[in-house]
Amino acid sequence: MKRILINKLNNYIENEVKIEGWIHRIRALKSITFVILRDRTGLVQCVIDNKLINSEDIKLESVVSIKGIVKESNNKLNNFEIEVRKFEVISKCKDELPIEINKEDLNINLVTMLNNRVLSLRHEKINAIFKVQNVIVNGFREYLMDEGFTEIFTPKLVSEGAEGGTEVFEVKYFEDKAYLAQSPQFYKQMMVAAGFEKVFEIGHVYRAEQHDTNRHLNEYVSMDLEFGFIENEEDIMKLEEEFLKFIINKLEKETQKYLNLLNVELPNVNGSIPRIKFSKAIEILKEEYNKTNLENDLDPEAEKLLCEYAKEKLGSDFIFVTHYPRVKRPMYTMPCGENETHSFDLLFRGIEITTGGQRIHDYDMLINNIKYKGLNPENYLSYTEVFKYGVPKHGGLAIGLERIVSKILGLENVREATLITRDRHRLIP
Amino acid sequence: MKRILINKLNNYIENEVKIEGWIHRIRALKSITFVILRDRTGLVQCVIDNKLINSEDIKLESVVSIKGIVKESNNKLNNFEIEVRKFEVISKCKDELPIEINKEDLNINLVTMLNNRVLSLRHEKINAIFKVQNVIVNGFREYLMDEGFTEIFTPKLVSEGAEGGTEVFEVKYFEDKAYLAQSPQFYKQMMVAAGFEKVFEIGHVYRAEQHDTNRHLNEYVSMDLEFGFIENEEDIMKLEEEFLKFIINKLEKETQKYLNLLNVELPNVNGSIPRIKFSKAIEILKEEYNKTNLENDLDPEAEKLLCEYAKEKLGSDFIFVTHYPRVKRPMYTMPCGENETHSFDLLFRGIEITTGGQRIHDYDMLINNIKYKGLNPENYLSYTEVFKYGVPKHGGLAIGLERIVSKILGLENVREATLITRDRHRLIP
Repeated sequence: MKRILINKLNNYIENEVKIEGWIHRIRALKSITFVILRDRTGLVQCVIDNKLINSEDIKLESVVSIKGIVKESNNKLNNFEIEVRKFEVISKCKDELPIEINKEDLNINLVTMLNNRVLSLRHEKINAIFKVQNVIVNGFREYLMDEGFTEIFTPKLVSEGAEGGTEVFEVKYFEDKAYLAQSPQFYKQMMVAAGFEKVFEIGHVYRAEQHDTNRHLNEYVSMDLEFGFIENEEDIMKLEEEFLKFIINKLEKETQKYLNLLNVELPNVNGSIPRIKFSKAIEILKEEYNKTNLENDLDPEAEKLLCEYAKEKLGSDFIFVTHYPRVKRPMYTMPCGENETHSFDLLFRGIEITTGGQRIHDYDMLINNIKYKGLNPENYLSYTEVFKYGVPKHGGLAIGLERIVSKILGLENVREATLITRDRHRLIP
Repeated sequence: MKRILINKLNNYIENEVKIEGWIHRIRALKSITFVILRDRTGLVQCVIDNKLINSEDIKLESVVSIKGIVKESNNKLNNFEIEVRKFEVISKCKDELPIEINKEDLNINLVTMLNNRVLSLRHEKINAIFKVQNVIVNGFREYLMDEGFTEIFTPKLVSEGAEGGTEVFEVKYFEDKAYLAQSPQFYKQMMVAAGFEKVFEIGHVYRAEQHDTNRHLNEYVSMDLEFGFIENEEDIMKLEEEFLKFIINKLEKETQKYLNLLNVELPNVNGSIPRIKFSKAIEILKEEYNKTNLENDLDPEAEKLLCEYAKEKLGSDFIFVTHYPRVKRPMYTMPCGENETHSFDLLFRGIEITTGGQRIHDYDMLINNIKYKGLNPENYLSYTEVFKYGVPKHGGLAIGLERIVSKILGLENVREATLITRDRHRLIP
């Protein structure tokens, strides 16, 4: 007999079905027991004659297989219930549950949530986060594939760092040392130059940052894209506007159930996203918020204030900050005049969720800019070599998946948007 | 003016267009120069009045922007050509090309191909490999999403190894030691148990194998799936048959151009794939091929011979070998009687491309099996813990992406199916 999913049971009224899942709730009366069964599609009430079962077998979170008749009924969950004919335990819950997962809200702290990850993920509000994440990932991918982008898989074991300054994890690679990639930056540029022209990659990247904040992870999923034959960074920002619209429309269509559950309102991206120059942003921060401690970069408070400004003054949930100072952007960033660059960040609900820009495509300019940044071109030979053989004008961006998910869903900590967290103190589970 | 891709130019006969790409071939006559321009969609002949250009600017593989009129013409490439009005170099090729990439075949050895990866990838026959790879990846993903699978991203930095014996890469993780994941095995099982029920992951995995063969990589892309509420491994093999059919149909529809270029005939998977037990396979190898040196496992020669057998005697490009001995399968494998397991490998064109099977879902059985394999359950606590709280019967499989791509395309070395190879001796580019 084939298993029927709970959200399809309304097609089987008065029929016998087999359903399987976890015991979500139990109410034992003298002669019958009510069991709420949970599968990945929902909950259903099952009514069991106590003669059919051994009461010791009925444990919360045990996995069971039930055969019974779908009967019309009025209960809180559905307009049907299961009149159970056969009840079989597949996997009995052996221990006291460390957390209660059949309440409307979990109400546990983050550490407990992450320590008991397999159980906390069973809670529908936690599980829903990753259903939404899936749609975001697929929206990104679908939009780009329709635009002629090729998906790439590039090495995470590298011999050179892309970002220079940031900390990297070291790997023992036979007799050599390798490092975990901080981004696919060099490789995605190389694949543009290799004739794919437009590429994207969705995969893990690694940052050995010492600090433990609510917005950093040591291993996270980066949604990267890079494409050639652009005019400048404006082409990249336009693409981002378009795929954000696409993703948000997709969320609206496909995840309404989860968004309601999580009490989330989607951001509005119907118009174009406002752009302000970095230098202008610094002025605004000074004039409007009396914030004057910034030099060449934004800090978390500045990002928050600029998002407030964008919301209040420009009516936008998003804001592009453009033309970051050359001294603060990586060596591959296309300069714009003496001090600025063809680069941008996208801020959303108080935080940077995208970094992007045009890259240098000219060999000599690249070598000079590596030196300008105080780095040694000798350390980047396999990368710089590429630029000797014809590279189109190109650029791209990277979005931290966990950040965009947590900001769209209003989660307090980026860890809530990871299935299994890797941070300063967490290698387990 | 918007760039037009070469494969769309036939819609612009007698119109002025802008095209951009790499100079693929040059033939300079006294008053005109013929340039073949290449973009990601094809090649087109451009006719340039020499007065328009400085002949020193016309270098193979330079990136150029051309404006001109699309004229009807009879040439080898198309029934049109470009009468050039404006010619602009975006990025000049500065050096002698280390390899010739405008020949019908590259004709270089593998080391040269991988050392000059960005250039070798520009050759249409090399580039085509990854267009086919894209369709395989998307076919896998699309089929599974339609079947209700959730895409997951699980840590590659782990504290425990999944496979026991195999070599792992060690990572310095702050004060701790971590390892690069050999597979997402534990995590995909945990995500089934976390209520997702059906999950898949396409991502890098790492094997610190010392040996350098044509079928091993130290970093490769694993297409993993795992799902719950199965009866036994037969459900998994059926799913694999179905998605292989889906993928091969998709290749037939979407990649004919590339398959022709690579002179590839797709395998046939219309019927069901034959299954033979491991013990029977050993008998066949002995009786049909006089191969008697095997104990509890197949070697590469045995895999080759069984594929021959499947092709000649059973008319199939694929063969499932089932019921591998318990002593040779990992500790999470569901035993089948005293000595066998509910497991399988899928062999295809001489090589194992999938390993799969049913997993143990019962806590006590798992602990006992860990001990049976001579391992210490204490080392797997965060994994075994999960099985105390209700886990459905489940199983799954893993496919090495580079292997299936190279076997479908008849590539000699799995490295040809990686954009950037990581092997015993290669951390660059």
